[in-house]
Amino acid sequence: MSDGDRLAELAKRRGFYFQSSEPYGGAAGFYTFGPQGAAVKHNVEDAWRERFTVREGNMEIQSPTVMPEPVFEASGHLDTFDDMIVECADCGSSHRADHLVEDHTDIEEAESLPGSEVEDLIADNDVACPTCGTELAGRPVEDFNLMFQTNIGPGDAQPGYLRPETAQGIFVDVPRLKEYARNQLPFGVTQIGPAYRNEISPRGGLKRLREFTQAELELFVDPQEDEPPLAEVADVVLPLYSAEQQQAEDGEIQELTVREAVDEGVVGEPWIAYYLGVGRQWYERIGVDLDRFRYRQHLSGERAHYASDCWDAEADVSLPGEDPDWIEITGYAYRSDYDLKKHADHADDEFSVFKQYDEPVTVERPTVDPDMSYLGPAFGGQAQAVVDALADLAANQPDAFEGDEVTVEVDGENVTVPVEKTGFAVEEQTEHGEHLTPHVVEPSFGVDRVVYTVLTHAYREDEVDGEPRTYLALDPEVAPTTVGVFPLLDDLEGRARDLTERLRANGLPATYDDSGSIGRRYRRQDEIGTPFCVTLDERTPEDDTVTIRDRDTTDQVRVPVDELPAVLADLRAGRRSFEDLETPPRA
Amino acid sequence: MSDGDRLAELAKRRGFYFQSSEPYGGAAGFYTFGPQGAAVKHNVEDAWRERFTVREGNMEIQSPTVMPEPVFEASGHLDTFDDMIVECADCGSSHRADHLVEDHTDIEEAESLPGSEVEDLIADNDVACPTCGTELAGRPVEDFNLMFQTNIGPGDAQPGYLRPETAQGIFVDVPRLKEYARNQLPFGVTQIGPAYRNEISPRGGLKRLREFTQAELELFVDPQEDEPPLAEVADVVLPLYSAEQQQAEDGEIQELTVREAVDEGVVGEPWIAYYLGVGRQWYERIGVDLDRFRYRQHLSGERAHYASDCWDAEADVSLPGEDPDWIEITGYAYRSDYDLKKHADHADDEFSVFKQYDEPVTVERPTVDPDMSYLGPAFGGQAQAVVDALADLAANQPDAFEGDEVTVEVDGENVTVPVEKTGFAVEEQTEHGEHLTPHVVEPSFGVDRVVYTVLTHAYREDEVDGEPRTYLALDPEVAPTTVGVFPLLDDLEGRARDLTERLRANGLPATYDDSGSIGRRYRRQDEIGTPFCVTLDERTPEDDTVTIRDRDTTDQVRVPVDELPAVLADLRAGRRSFEDLETPPRA
Repeated sequence: MSDGDRLAELAKRRGFYFQSSEPYGGAAGFYTFGPQGAAVKHNVEDAWRERFTVREGNMEIQSPTVMPEPVFEASGHLDTFDDMIVECADCGSSHRADHLVEDHTDIEEAESLPGSEVEDLIADNDVACPTCGTELAGRPVEDFNLMFQTNIGPGDAQPGYLRPETAQGIFVDVPRLKEYARNQLPFGVTQIGPAYRNEISPRGGLKRLREFTQAELELFVDPQEDEPPLAEVADVVLPLYSAEQQQAEDGEIQELTVREAVDEGVVGEPWIAYYLGVGRQWYERIGVDLDRFRYRQHLSGERAHYASDCWDAEADVSLPGEDPDWIEITGYAYRSDYDLKKHADHADDEFSVFKQYDEPVTVERPTVDPDMSYLGPAFGGQAQAVVDALADLAANQPDAFEGDEVTVEVDGENVTVPVEKTGFAVEEQTEHGEHLTPHVVEPSFGVDRVVYTVLTHAYREDEVDGEPRTYLALDPEVAPTTVGVFPLLDDLEGRARDLTERLRANGLPATYDDSGSIGRRYRRQDEIGTPFCVTLDERTPEDDTVTIRDRDTTDQVRVPVDELPAVLADLRAGRRSFEDLETPPRA
Repeated sequence: MSDGDRLAELAKRRGFYFQSSEPYGGAAGFYTFGPQGAAVKHNVEDAWRERFTVREGNMEIQSPTVMPEPVFEASGHLDTFDDMIVECADCGSSHRADHLVEDHTDIEEAESLPGSEVEDLIADNDVACPTCGTELAGRPVEDFNLMFQTNIGPGDAQPGYLRPETAQGIFVDVPRLKEYARNQLPFGVTQIGPAYRNEISPRGGLKRLREFTQAELELFVDPQEDEPPLAEVADVVLPLYSAEQQQAEDGEIQELTVREAVDEGVVGEPWIAYYLGVGRQWYERIGVDLDRFRYRQHLSGERAHYASDCWDAEADVSLPGEDPDWIEITGYAYRSDYDLKKHADHADDEFSVFKQYDEPVTVERPTVDPDMSYLGPAFGGQAQAVVDALADLAANQPDAFEGDEVTVEVDGENVTVPVEKTGFAVEEQTEHGEHLTPHVVEPSFGVDRVVYTVLTHAYREDEVDGEPRTYLALDPEVAPTTVGVFPLLDDLEGRARDLTERLRANGLPATYDDSGSIGRRYRRQDEIGTPFCVTLDERTPEDDTVTIRDRDTTDQVRVPVDELPAVLADLRAGRRSFEDLETPPRA
């Protein structure tokens, strides 16, 4: 088996994840998290919330997944959130045209080519339909919008779309959210929830879903004044694969501290460097293997035009013995004021924040106060349009009023007005502040891909007592179950059930199992990544002790039952390590 | 203000909830939970998970919100998940035809009338368009399917729908989920997530959303053998408003214990009675006012035909001084084997569970073994169809083989076959068990409505120091913030910030506030339902004590700073009450 098949098999059999609606043949790109997978995902989300919302002092919101069309007219998704599609004339199946070209040529980024060139490349390289083998030469390459469309209410008067990112739910509500932040920058807003991308023909399990979960933080900052608390992560080491290194002959990953990365200009935006540091600490905490992890900078062709710097956190999700398979798990982007300016242009609301000056400032403001007794008779129904044009001209080009006449364009025609009739003047005004459109710093996590990374990095094969064993070395904070409880004798079952309840009441996810040999019970827990198993044996009724077994080493120690909840809580929180436990002498 | 307006105003101003995409004019039926609301919702979901998943020993899954069409062909939603719609010929606006009839006549349940009758009622009662006033007489009343439709992948070859209930994501995956339960009944599966209903013209804020969150438990049981653990909730008192009482002249709510409700047959299904008991305990825990709460049984016309018993948990969500406003917050339904049978009929998978008998059973099984050397020449291409028809007849009507000839229908024609050519025989077979389609017991919670109920029931207006005060008396488990921390003097700010951090590190949601008068800071926390506020004052540096203020009584006590995390954790968990705290004597 290869390409994650071994993990997919375990995931299906043990309840981590599987394709949805399987009894109906499934739908590509839609996966269900089973009991174990939903627990891991939930734990990952909680760890994210603790780090990126609570500890950073941000606000978490929850906005709908369906949003009306004007939002995506403004955001640009309606126009540009496209993939290139080519449809087979014979079997009717659709394919990503750029991917076909990449598969048949040396071209690596066909996405950036114009459609006509992709059409030519398909013809020149005799690219055939992957489904039925018919040649695709001559077939048109078209843009396919990746948003799922629907209609809100009856009829099609109000189109709606499933949001392609949770971020838009934050951006559109900034006029209200800034009030909750008392109009003080910086402020951060987070959201964890579903997002959608109607992929043309997704393959690859959790790596490419049509419905997925994002955890996004949008930090709104004053680009002139706000600086990140770099000191908190200054010494965190970042494995940086810069654009420059990617394009160099022997390009390699540079290990720099956050401070070095900023000082040497490898990471251009200090806010981005700060979050790369926080991110690295968080990935480590939830069990991402940092030896198979890197930050890769976007090449200039990849980067959105508005983003001054973008880095992807990437993980190698190959299983032992497979070729490397790097996937993006988080995008870190400095989005400037692009998003809020777009919404300010399209929507009827105020997306800027009023920034008070330390001292009031006096400015000269050119104004007009036209003589309507002249303009009215002279221009009739066009008079108001002439007034507006004069006001614009005064604001943007006050020099034009230096002569005797000014000329403005109204409805495509030039109109001339004597300056004396415009009431042109330059007034001194005192200003107390300005309206500032905040810049946006965005760490955007793909939760499903993070979960997938955590599972692949935890996947282990070894031998125990001469038998092959598969297990998941999950971090206790992320594992679905903290402890399995096994009675070794029939008359210990009641006692074992009571202990399970007691552990649960102490907030420890515990599973009771009395079925099959002790070896089978251990393997079952090993496969779902349960870090500890507790066994009640013949000695338990004598001295009220049980054994704890460590998943990774299979070492065992005895612990008094009364101490068990505290010991397990300490092990789970990382306050104690298993090697420090000692079996007390037999009474 | 009325109809929840006062709450809506507070909710918007303080960040509980507000209409989404407001800068674009909003979209009816879509709401965003702001920072406070998202926190309350999250706390309610966690409390639900603890009670209905963890404590009940059920499995939680997470399945996609978009599902392919065959799922809803099977479930019946494609055919029957409709509302009656009438469109105005003049202004083009759409309305729920049954609601218009209810508004203009004495009819209470117009939904159950045929469309033609609703058309007549609209004409006879001169019903006009609520938007523009044009008479609607003569306009057709049609069925409008309430599912949001979209397309999966390019083109329209694979229609998909936003799920109208999370339950279908559980039902379709039963063939796999039963494996995780090791094919043992009963087993329960839960899911918390978005569900959708494309209402024709929703009004009423959180009470009627197009996108909402459900928390559903589907319990799969053996109807013959499985019984609920009634003893656990036997003495819980249920405020029951039965169908009989609803239809009686002076019908009233009966207060019965769970045990009485079952024994007296008021609640027909013991499983439903069990969950009504668990539900009542849970509502109380999260702060639903039980004086404004009832369980209302569905009338026979309301109930789905497959459901043998249905009860709604209802809450009165009027604010002080308003008329009662009862809304459904949970549905409890005994759904029998309806759902799984439907999916078994439509899908290519096994939705039943193999139930082993205690002892093998010998049964007589009529079979046929037709003589093909006769049937082949006699029926040609129809021979196999004749064989199938004979096998069906033997299984269902073995008596038919008692004469010399049997007659079966094949392709609409009667065909006669000599019995001696059918190879009819009755064989004895030993059976070790049977395939049983589980019955489904479903408590289905509308999370948004539960949150709305909790907020309305917590809404209070009183007077403090002669000033009117509005506050939310939220349960500490549900409140967005547990404690506000205020420095009274400028040079205590650092100390107060440190204390805030320390409380957060102890898992207590804490907010620091140094802005404005102490009275204003209290009011801010009162309005978002923060149960406790801690003040650092001039005595704090002297003896390391602070004051804690109780939101509801505004009483204050002094507590040593070192004890604060434990005291607040106890207060939050309900292990101690504020009245039991005592100010220590001044050192």
